[in-house]
Amino acid sequence: MKFSPLILTLFLIGSLNAQWFSKSKPVVLNLMPVPQHIELKSGAFRVTDDFSLGVTGRSHDRIYGGADRFLQRLSGRTVLFFAQGFLNEKTTPTEGKLIIRVQRPGEVKLGEDESYELTISSKGIVLEAHTDLGALHGLETLLQLLSVDGDGYYFPAIQINDHPQYPWRGLLIDVCRHWQPMAVIKRNLDGMAAVKLNVLHFHLSEDQGFRVESKVFPELTEKGSDGNYFTQTQIREIIQYADDRGIRVVPEFDMPGHTTALLTARPDLASGPGPYEIERKFGVFDPTIDPTRESTYVFMEKFWGEMAALFPDEYMHIGGDENNGKQWDANPRIQAFMDSMDLADNHALQRYFNTRLLEILTRNGKKMMGWDEIFQPDLPKNIVIQSWRGRKALIDAARQGYQGILSNGYYIDLCYPTDNHYLNYPIAPDADLTPDERARILGGEATMWAELVTPETIDSRIWPRTAAIAERLWSAPEVNDVDDMYRRLELVSFQLEELGLTHEKNHPMLLRRLRNHQDITALQTLVDVVEPVKGYTRHRFAKYTSFSPLTHVVDAARPDAAVARKFRKLVDAYLANPVEGITQTTIIQHLVRWESNHAKLKTTIAGSPILKEVESLSADLSRAATVGRDALAYLELGEAPDDVWIASSGVILENAKNPRAAMELMVISGIERLREFAISIRP
Amino acid sequence: MKFSPLILTLFLIGSLNAQWFSKSKPVVLNLMPVPQHIELKSGAFRVTDDFSLGVTGRSHDRIYGGADRFLQRLSGRTVLFFAQGFLNEKTTPTEGKLIIRVQRPGEVKLGEDESYELTISSKGIVLEAHTDLGALHGLETLLQLLSVDGDGYYFPAIQINDHPQYPWRGLLIDVCRHWQPMAVIKRNLDGMAAVKLNVLHFHLSEDQGFRVESKVFPELTEKGSDGNYFTQTQIREIIQYADDRGIRVVPEFDMPGHTTALLTARPDLASGPGPYEIERKFGVFDPTIDPTRESTYVFMEKFWGEMAALFPDEYMHIGGDENNGKQWDANPRIQAFMDSMDLADNHALQRYFNTRLLEILTRNGKKMMGWDEIFQPDLPKNIVIQSWRGRKALIDAARQGYQGILSNGYYIDLCYPTDNHYLNYPIAPDADLTPDERARILGGEATMWAELVTPETIDSRIWPRTAAIAERLWSAPEVNDVDDMYRRLELVSFQLEELGLTHEKNHPMLLRRLRNHQDITALQTLVDVVEPVKGYTRHRFAKYTSFSPLTHVVDAARPDAAVARKFRKLVDAYLANPVEGITQTTIIQHLVRWESNHAKLKTTIAGSPILKEVESLSADLSRAATVGRDALAYLELGEAPDDVWIASSGVILENAKNPRAAMELMVISGIERLREFAISIRP
Repeated sequence: MKFSPLILTLFLIGSLNAQWFSKSKPVVLNLMPVPQHIELKSGAFRVTDDFSLGVTGRSHDRIYGGADRFLQRLSGRTVLFFAQGFLNEKTTPTEGKLIIRVQRPGEVKLGEDESYELTISSKGIVLEAHTDLGALHGLETLLQLLSVDGDGYYFPAIQINDHPQYPWRGLLIDVCRHWQPMAVIKRNLDGMAAVKLNVLHFHLSEDQGFRVESKVFPELTEKGSDGNYFTQTQIREIIQYADDRGIRVVPEFDMPGHTTALLTARPDLASGPGPYEIERKFGVFDPTIDPTRESTYVFMEKFWGEMAALFPDEYMHIGGDENNGKQWDANPRIQAFMDSMDLADNHALQRYFNTRLLEILTRNGKKMMGWDEIFQPDLPKNIVIQSWRGRKALIDAARQGYQGILSNGYYIDLCYPTDNHYLNYPIAPDADLTPDERARILGGEATMWAELVTPETIDSRIWPRTAAIAERLWSAPEVNDVDDMYRRLELVSFQLEELGLTHEKNHPMLLRRLRNHQDITALQTLVDVVEPVKGYTRHRFAKYTSFSPLTHVVDAARPDAAVARKFRKLVDAYLANPVEGITQTTIIQHLVRWESNHAKLKTTIAGSPILKEVESLSADLSRAATVGRDALAYLELGEAPDDVWIASSGVILENAKNPRAAMELMVISGIERLREFAISIRP
Repeated sequence: MKFSPLILTLFLIGSLNAQWFSKSKPVVLNLMPVPQHIELKSGAFRVTDDFSLGVTGRSHDRIYGGADRFLQRLSGRTVLFFAQGFLNEKTTPTEGKLIIRVQRPGEVKLGEDESYELTISSKGIVLEAHTDLGALHGLETLLQLLSVDGDGYYFPAIQINDHPQYPWRGLLIDVCRHWQPMAVIKRNLDGMAAVKLNVLHFHLSEDQGFRVESKVFPELTEKGSDGNYFTQTQIREIIQYADDRGIRVVPEFDMPGHTTALLTARPDLASGPGPYEIERKFGVFDPTIDPTRESTYVFMEKFWGEMAALFPDEYMHIGGDENNGKQWDANPRIQAFMDSMDLADNHALQRYFNTRLLEILTRNGKKMMGWDEIFQPDLPKNIVIQSWRGRKALIDAARQGYQGILSNGYYIDLCYPTDNHYLNYPIAPDADLTPDERARILGGEATMWAELVTPETIDSRIWPRTAAIAERLWSAPEVNDVDDMYRRLELVSFQLEELGLTHEKNHPMLLRRLRNHQDITALQTLVDVVEPVKGYTRHRFAKYTSFSPLTHVVDAARPDAAVARKFRKLVDAYLANPVEGITQTTIIQHLVRWESNHAKLKTTIAGSPILKEVESLSADLSRAATVGRDALAYLELGEAPDDVWIASSGVILENAKNPRAAMELMVISGIERLREFAISIRP
C-alpha cells in the first residue's frame, strides 16, 4: 500500500484521537470538513502581533471582506493587536506574512471552482486558489488550524490541497412555519461559510406563511404573513451577505400544495371554494392552486418573473411536494379539464402545472428545481431533483440523465444523532453508477424545517450537527470515523460561537427561564442525559400550532446528548476490560451524581411547577443509576445478583425507557448493558 | 405618619427582602422600576391555558403588537398553550381575562401621557391607560408580576397606579467608535421597553465613523464608514421598531468637533488643510468643521434637512462637545473672520455656528439638543441641554429657564457598579429648586460610549445596570434601597434574556473562547470576583484602536461582580455578629475555593497562554484567601496574630489590590476587614 498524502490523511484522521507527530510535539488536527489532501511538515508558523496579510492576483472584491473577517476572528481568538484592520480593496497590501493569491474573480454559481492550496511554513503562509471562493474556504481551514501551546498561538507547518467532493452543499431554512428574522439568517450564513457549505435553500412560502414582499402582489404578505416577511430590500441584503461568503441563495416557492397562506391572499387561484386563513397547525393540508385556469398562469408569469429578477441564482425551486389532491378530486371543473386534456390522474395534472411553470422559468432564464414529486421523464436535463424520499429516487433519476441532490437522511429537524446524518452518503460507497451518473448527483442539503423551532432554538437544531453533514458533502467518503467526527465536532461547536450562533449559549438561558432562577445545576444534570424524541414523535405529546410555546425542557434538550454518548462509550470500554481503573471510576461518578440528582431536582420543581413534566424522568434516572451502581457492585464482589434484584431492576430500566415530555433518557441502554453483564456472570 | 399606598410601597420595597403578606402566603414583588402607587390585595389571578386578552377603547395600532408580544412572552415563561396567537387589530377581541382599555392613541413624543392603572383580582385583570404607551408600560409591569408556586403561575391581586417621575428616560448608543449592527439595536430597544425607557439617543457620527446613509451626500458613508452604516431604509425600520415599543429615536450628529469621519469624505468643510482619514484611535482630535464659510451652511442646510425628514422626532442633537479649537487657532482665515465678526474666542465662534444650525433646525420644524458646551443664554427656551459635566450645569440652566437632561453619573461604559448610578438623581432629593425649575429637568440618559465594546460585549455593559438607571428615572426618589435594588436586578437580568439580550449568555461564551475549551470552571471562579478597572483607566493598559481585539478576560469580566459584592456583604454581616453559623461557613467556603483555585487555573493557563495575563491576579486571590482563612482561624481560637503574620499578610493584601490586565480583585477589601478584625482583638 502506497502512502500517498491522501491516504496518510485519511488513515490518521480516521483513527480515534488522531495525532500527527511533528518534529517537536504531537499535532492533533481539528479540521471539519477534513481536506482532500494533507501533508504535515515539521515546524510551525507562530502568530504574533506583527502578523499581516496581503492579497495578490485578480480577485472579486469579496476576498477583502473575507480577509477582514479572518483577521478579526484571528485577533479575537489570539487577543493580539495587529497593525492591520478594516481591510478593503484600497487598504489591503500585496505583501504580508499570509499571502492570498487568487487567479480570477469567482462567480457564486453551481460548479464554480472552489479549490484551494494552503502552504504553511515557519516563514509564512501562502493561500492559492483559482477563485476567491476557494480562497475563502482556505481561510476557514486556516482558522481551524490555529493551535496553541505554552508559547502562544501557531499554525502547524502543513501543505493542504483541497476541493469539495460535491458542488451542491446546502442548508434549507424554513422561515414559514416559524418566522426567522434577518439576524437568524445572517448568523447561520456565517456558520455555513465556516464549514464550507455553499447553498442557502430559502423555503419562503408555506401553508403557515408567505415570507417575501411582492411589489406586484403586495396582498401576498399583507394577508399571508402576519406581518412577518422579508422586504425585497432585505432579500437583497441577505443575497449580498451570502454572496460575500461564497454562498448561493436558492428560493423555494412551494406549489401547487403548501399554499394556504398564498391562497389566503389570493383565493381566486385556489382549487377549492375558500375562503382561506393562514394555517396554524402542522401537517399536509388541502388548499391547492388550481392549475386548470389560464388566470393562474397570468399570476405565475408575473410572480415568478418578479422573483426571478430578485433572486440572481440560476436555480429556482418550485416545491411540488405533498399535494394531497383532495381539492382537485372534489372540483368538477378541474375533473372536466383533466378529461378534456387527457390527463389520467392528479400526477398528470401536476405534471401539466410543472410544465407550465418550467416554461415561465425558462423564459426568465432560470433552471427549475423541485422535490421528488416533480420528476417526470420529459423534463429538460438541466433541472435538479431534490430527494426527500430517499437515495433510490436520486439514483433512478441520475440513470435517466437527471441531476439531483439528497435531503433524505439530512432532516436535522427530526433530532436524530449526528452519526446518522454523517454516514448518509449522497452516493453510497458501494453505489453501482457510471462516472457520468455520479456527476449528476450534485450533493445534498440539510433541511431545517421549522414546525418546532423559534429564533431562540433554531441554531441548536442546526448546529453543530450540520457541520458533520457539511463534512460528508465536502470530504472524501473514506472520512467516516464516527468517534473522530464527534471529537472534532465538539471543538467546532464552540468555535462557531464566535459567529454569533446561539446553539451553545441559549441552552443554559432556556434552563434559567424554566427554572426561574440562575442556579440550574440539578436541571442541567438531567437535561445532559436526555434527548428529544426522534422523528415526528413529538407531535404525539402535544398539539402544536405556530404560536405554541417552544420553551419546554425538550426545547433546551440537545439532539445529540454528549454526556450520554460518552457514558455509553465508557460502558463499552469497561465491558471490554472490566477492571478497576479510571473508566470504572468515571462510570461510578456519573451514576452517583444521577442517583442523588432527583432529590435536588424535586426541590427545584417545587418552585417551578413547569418542571413537573420531567419529574418522573428524573425519578427514573435516579432509580436507573442505582441499578447501574448495584450491577457494578455485584461485578466487583464477583457475586451473583439475586432474582429479586434481577426482576425489579428489569422493571426499572424498562420503565425508564419510556419517553416522557417528548424526551427520552439516553443512558439507560448503557446501564442495561452493565446489568446484563452482571447477570451474565451468574454462576 | 399616614400610610398612603405610596408610602406603604416605599416602606416595604425599601426594606431588604421586602415581603408583602397576602392572605395565604408572603408575596415578594420583583418590580423594576418600582411603580408610584401599589396596593396589594388578597388572592391571586391564576394563569391557566384558558388565558385570553382583549383590547377596548380607542388606541394606536401599536397596542396589538404589544399585546401579541406580551402573550408570547407569557406563554414562553409559563409553557401554557393559549388559544390566542398572532394578535392584530382584526384578530384581537374586546373581551378576555385581561382587558386592556385605552382612551386615545398615544404619540411617541416628549411629554406624552405614559401613565397606567393595573387592577388584578382573582376574577381577571384590567389594564387602563390614557394612551397605548401607558398600556405598554402596564404590560411590562404585569409580566414582572408573574409569580409561581407549587400550583403553577399566578398574578397577585393588586392595584397599581403608575406614571413616570421624569418624561425623558434615555439610553445613548454610540454606533460609531465600534459599529453596532441592526440586531444589537433591536434587542436593546426591547430591553429598554422592558424597563420603561422611552428615548434611544442614537449617536451616529464620530471621528471613527459616519453611520447613516445620506442620499444627498453619499460620500459621507462611502468614505467615512468602512462600509458599516445604516441605510435610510434600515433607519426607518429602527424608528418603526422603536415606535412600536413607545420609544423615541433622537439622532445625534456631533459637530463641529468629533467630525474626522465626515471630513474624510468632505475635507472642503474642514478648518484645517486635510486630507483626513477615519480615526482609529480614541480621544479628542483636532479635525473640526469650519464655521466661517458660507459653503459650510449650504452643506448643513441640505444635510440637516435630509435628516430632519428621515427622523420624525421633534428633537435633533447637534453634539457640540469637546471641540479643542486647535484648527481654528491655527487658521488665519478663521481668525480674521472672528475679528471681523467681533467673536472674542472659540466659544463665541462655536456659538455662532450653533446659532446657524439652530436656524436650520428651526426651519425644518425641529428643536435643538446638545451637550453642555452648546449652552448660551440667548438660545430659545425649547432646546434641551444634555449634561455630561455634572448636575450643577443642569441646575444653572434650569434656573435660567432652560430644559436639560442628566448624563453625568450615568456613563455605563466606565464600568462603575450599579449603586453609583442608582443613587445619582437628576434632581437631588435636597435640591433647592422651584416647581417650574424642577419641571425643566426632564430626566436623564445612560450613555453607552463604544470605545471598548463590540456587538459581543455591548449588552453586558448596558445590562443589567441600565435597569437600575431606568428605575431612577421612572420611580419616586424615595425608592433608593440599594440592597433591594440588587435583589431585584438579579431577577430582571435573566428576565431580560428572553428578549435576545446577550449580557448573561455571552459571558461563558467569551470564557470558552479564552480557555479554548468547554470547561471553564477555574477561570469562572476567578472572573466571578474581578471587575474591569473603572473610569478611563483601561486605556492605560493598552493602546486600543477601533480594530483591537476586545476578547480579553476583562471583556468577559462584569462591571458589578455579584459574587464579590455578596462576599463583602457576608463579611459585614459576620463582623456585626462574629459567631459560628451559616455566614461564617459560607465565607469559609468561598475562601477555600479561591485558595485552591490557582492550582487549577495554572493548568488551564498552560494550555491557553492567552490567560497568562491573569496568572498573578489568580495567585494573589489564592494568597489573599489564605489570609482570610488565617484571620478566621485566629478569631475562632481567640488567639492573637503574631507580628510575622501581620506583616506578611499586609504585604499580600496590598499587593493584591493592584489592578492587572485592566482588572481588579473585588474581594480584597472584605478579606482586609477580616484581617483587621483579627488584629483588633489582639490582647
